[in-house]
Amino acid sequence: MAGRSSNKVDGVHETSITIEGDHSTMEEEIHKVCLPPNKTIFQSIKHNFSEIFFPDDPLHKFKNQKPSKKFLLGIQYFFPILEWGSEYSFKLLKSDVISGLTIASLASPQGISYAKLANLPPLYGLYSSFVPPLLYAILGSSRHLAVGPVSIASLVMGSMLKGVVSPTEDPTLYLKLALTSTFFAGVFQTSLGLLRLGFIIDFLSKPTLTGFTAGAAVIVGLQQLKGMLGITHFTPKMQIVSVLSSVFSTTKEWSWQTVVMGMCFLIFLLATRHISIKKPHLFWVSAAAPLASVILSTVLVYVLTPHTSAISTIGHLSTGLNPPSANMLSVSGTHLALALKTGIVSGILSLTEGIAVGRTFASLRNYQIDGNKEMIAIGVMNMAGSCTSCYVTTGSFSRSAVNYNAGAQTAVSNIVMAATVLITLLFLLPLFHFTPTVILAAIIITAVIGLINYQEVIKFWRVDKFDFMTCLIAFFGVIFLSVQMGLALAVGVSIFKILMNVTRPTTVVLGNIPGTQIFQNVGRYGDATRVPSFLVLAIESPICFANSTYLQERILRWVREEEERILANKEQDMKTIILDLTAVTAIDTNGLEAIVEIRKMLDKRSYKLVNWKLQKILELFGGKGLYLTVGEAIADISKRFKIEV
Amino acid sequence: MAGRSSNKVDGVHETSITIEGDHSTMEEEIHKVCLPPNKTIFQSIKHNFSEIFFPDDPLHKFKNQKPSKKFLLGIQYFFPILEWGSEYSFKLLKSDVISGLTIASLASPQGISYAKLANLPPLYGLYSSFVPPLLYAILGSSRHLAVGPVSIASLVMGSMLKGVVSPTEDPTLYLKLALTSTFFAGVFQTSLGLLRLGFIIDFLSKPTLTGFTAGAAVIVGLQQLKGMLGITHFTPKMQIVSVLSSVFSTTKEWSWQTVVMGMCFLIFLLATRHISIKKPHLFWVSAAAPLASVILSTVLVYVLTPHTSAISTIGHLSTGLNPPSANMLSVSGTHLALALKTGIVSGILSLTEGIAVGRTFASLRNYQIDGNKEMIAIGVMNMAGSCTSCYVTTGSFSRSAVNYNAGAQTAVSNIVMAATVLITLLFLLPLFHFTPTVILAAIIITAVIGLINYQEVIKFWRVDKFDFMTCLIAFFGVIFLSVQMGLALAVGVSIFKILMNVTRPTTVVLGNIPGTQIFQNVGRYGDATRVPSFLVLAIESPICFANSTYLQERILRWVREEEERILANKEQDMKTIILDLTAVTAIDTNGLEAIVEIRKMLDKRSYKLVNWKLQKILELFGGKGLYLTVGEAIADISKRFKIEV
Repeated sequence: MAGRSSNKVDGVHETSITIEGDHSTMEEEIHKVCLPPNKTIFQSIKHNFSEIFFPDDPLHKFKNQKPSKKFLLGIQYFFPILEWGSEYSFKLLKSDVISGLTIASLASPQGISYAKLANLPPLYGLYSSFVPPLLYAILGSSRHLAVGPVSIASLVMGSMLKGVVSPTEDPTLYLKLALTSTFFAGVFQTSLGLLRLGFIIDFLSKPTLTGFTAGAAVIVGLQQLKGMLGITHFTPKMQIVSVLSSVFSTTKEWSWQTVVMGMCFLIFLLATRHISIKKPHLFWVSAAAPLASVILSTVLVYVLTPHTSAISTIGHLSTGLNPPSANMLSVSGTHLALALKTGIVSGILSLTEGIAVGRTFASLRNYQIDGNKEMIAIGVMNMAGSCTSCYVTTGSFSRSAVNYNAGAQTAVSNIVMAATVLITLLFLLPLFHFTPTVILAAIIITAVIGLINYQEVIKFWRVDKFDFMTCLIAFFGVIFLSVQMGLALAVGVSIFKILMNVTRPTTVVLGNIPGTQIFQNVGRYGDATRVPSFLVLAIESPICFANSTYLQERILRWVREEEERILANKEQDMKTIILDLTAVTAIDTNGLEAIVEIRKMLDKRSYKLVNWKLQKILELFGGKGLYLTVGEAIADISKRFKIEV
Repeated sequence: MAGRSSNKVDGVHETSITIEGDHSTMEEEIHKVCLPPNKTIFQSIKHNFSEIFFPDDPLHKFKNQKPSKKFLLGIQYFFPILEWGSEYSFKLLKSDVISGLTIASLASPQGISYAKLANLPPLYGLYSSFVPPLLYAILGSSRHLAVGPVSIASLVMGSMLKGVVSPTEDPTLYLKLALTSTFFAGVFQTSLGLLRLGFIIDFLSKPTLTGFTAGAAVIVGLQQLKGMLGITHFTPKMQIVSVLSSVFSTTKEWSWQTVVMGMCFLIFLLATRHISIKKPHLFWVSAAAPLASVILSTVLVYVLTPHTSAISTIGHLSTGLNPPSANMLSVSGTHLALALKTGIVSGILSLTEGIAVGRTFASLRNYQIDGNKEMIAIGVMNMAGSCTSCYVTTGSFSRSAVNYNAGAQTAVSNIVMAATVLITLLFLLPLFHFTPTVILAAIIITAVIGLINYQEVIKFWRVDKFDFMTCLIAFFGVIFLSVQMGLALAVGVSIFKILMNVTRPTTVVLGNIPGTQIFQNVGRYGDATRVPSFLVLAIESPICFANSTYLQERILRWVREEEERILANKEQDMKTIILDLTAVTAIDTNGLEAIVEIRKMLDKRSYKLVNWKLQKILELFGGKGLYLTVGEAIADISKRFKIEV
């Protein structure tokens, strides 16, 4: 023990000299940790409030403007068309007409197909491709978003409503429910935007959405076997086991004519899709393919009809514009809750897709999308849509990509598309009479295959194992449980991860990088060396009720392990424990008590505890034992040791 | 503009010289940001797993021990009595007997009163003060915990069960439910301990518990007006409005004899409580008061009985030990769910109290309580209790304090207390025949007044406004809604706060403290000055899906505001943006994409983005533009500027 003790004294001398040397060359005085400027409660509440709800400072354009200018800016805020409309030129129109016609060729077949996904009559897909794009052109701020029905929202609405009401047995109630859900979706979306709660969609993280979308794609793809095989009696459930058992229990119903036709067109569609992926400038190949397939198959069936009736067709569609449907927006009791739930889930999903797509193309062209403003636009569009026989719509990823590639410059391409759909609704509907439903199934399969993003999943695995897990949970949840359960599970797991991060914050031992004032994790930086007689611990999270107990236990364990290490290596004793609180950005009452408790426990083992910078701790300790950097702490304390020794 | 431009060049020169000067005295080379040691997936999962479930490394005692020693330590782990039992001495016994008798004098009156809170027959309060303390003495690791029924858990169980089943109309079913709930509480507690999920109780933060307890105390206190005023028809509800209206709608039932007696004893009890608070060494005054009141009031009623029957008494209690009750542990259908819910809520609350009390006294005497082990002890105690006619028990705060003050040294004081209760159960029960129920109400009021901790609430207001709000929500939730709703609301708000902290992380602009390499928030440190042509932004939170969009928007806003500031002050242009990621302890896929996106957006404005240290970002950028400290980043980049200029 005597040897160790003399070692100790030597060590202290050496250390303090080294550090003192460093210290004197760099700075003479120890910097005071200071209190932040005093804020009144009102000021701090105002600050927090504006950080939560107005992080992007949306009113900054209005600052220092004349009232008349403010009014104009305000009108432009809600109707972006007034902003770009005045500068609209013939050159822009040319681009917009071309892109508008391109997406229109996609819109009709996809609209009809997605309506089928939502278990609605085909016409509602076309209605939904007419009114909403017009409204979005006036209200929306994205220049490339192609608006209309989308697969995910259609699928979710279809599966949630079908679970309670059969679309074949009670089509009127089903339609009422779909329109009411759309109305609620619009109300929900608008409220999120107006209340500036747009950040709620952030809780649908990328892994959640990737897994969810892939799961939904698999289910939808398998469900299309009904159409592809010509089965008439099929399960209404959305779960993989019942879908597959339904397929194989109805082998008698399979129609070979349908299968052959379906497979041919599916291969054709997939081939065009493949071409467009490989050669992006040939985007129009896959964009034109659905319409080409519809025309070709319709002609084929028309020619074949006298010979066979095995292939089911869309049948009669009555021409005419969207009928008003405000009178349909009423359901009672239990159905009201269903409509509300469906509205919220499909509303949030369609919002997520619309905003993500808008942001993607905005970023490519270097303009910004105001999320909350977009929510209001999409919400109003859906509320108005629900009164004009449209079900839930948003910006579609696939059509927006085509729109962008076809050279769309402004939302006018949406107007062109709507005009084309208008012509279809008024004059061209009889042409769809002989369109086989199998072609719709093939279009849906081609669309949903693009939703399975396996590269992204591989990336999750590489970047973050937990993200990978969340993605799998969403995927298998959707496949084996249900669309809603999968989504809820994945969101729950994501939130659980945040809570676990807070509950189990990282604590690391820091060491000095020789010749510098830099302190780094000794487990990571090989040249970071522990400063003898000091234990420097960094806490890397806010300290709050959820982790205060853990931190107490963990710090005591670090101290115990350090004691054991010192004993094993016969190093000099530990005298001071420095808590590096750089990464502790907040502390609550529980956290503060934990610090007091840790200090008390260490005092009993006759260690000194030194923290640095944190307003509340500052108030608690009155500036004693607080330093701005770990380096300063060690320098100052070593100096005092020397005096004591 | 020419003037500004020349300014700019000068500025750059000056800055770079200053920094270079600093730089050269301190260190010659820029320190490389390095990758952490490679871990296999299995290693990193193992590490995370052990941090989540074994932060205190409970098996560290077993390391490097012989198998026989390991076995002994294992047995001692589950039966702590074996650890201290072998060293037990006569001196310790003397202290334990004194403290045991002291808490026994409290246990009987409080047991009977708390059973009343849980709407159970008085005998069950005594039964619950007999078996559980004995078991805890064997299994528990706290030396000062006094075990038995407690007010909060009794109240919660009583109020949750009474909402569905009336204890007066169907006493057998009610009793069954209470015992089954106790069993479930035990199972839940044991599972938490065995699965090492003890951290779940941390989510009941101090503000939540303070508000909840105070709210429950107010409700319980008001409910005691039934006993204090001698009302016979009283509301079964636990909500302030119905309780108060019930009190004032039954003024006819008030009995003045009861009121006078109740008030006298209440004043007596409150006075003794006051004395013990003012002079802690007189703790025995308040400890003896309940028993003294019971004896005095019983004698009084016995004397008065021939003259009046206005004062209701406990009546006949049949002597005998706890009857076995395993056969009562079965309820069907809907009641099962109720029992489960009640078990979980009362289980978690009693666990929280027991562990908090255990930790408090352990900290005073400098020993440690293993939370998960305690949970197993309390859980087993409740499971066994439910088979021997005991309802939910835990360590009581008030009795443990008395126990500690009376000099308890080990859990033997619990055994002494249990022995005293045993004698009461076998021989002394007839003495309670004439005990007036009003005295029980007075005892409960005195106990619950101590639960209203207004000093703590003032502290919340001073330390953290949000904690204060959480506390109020719990309080008013309990008072105006229900016990469960208040608790659920407060926990929800606490979790919401964590999520908001993550969703809206702090970002601050850093400035250099002249003559040092220290960078601090310019808003807080007056002498921290912005480095010309640099914008240093610190992000103070992990970057994840919940805040990646926000951070993108917020950083762009900082850049925009900096541009405006520079324009207004005619300062030199900003060239480089440094992101200080010291406090970013984790990043997920969304976060990584946000960084890429921010970099892309800044590139378009021809700014350079420089981050420092973070493994995943390191992999992404391949070490380019990464520095260990802000100071190094500025020094290095300035040097390169100079060459360019």
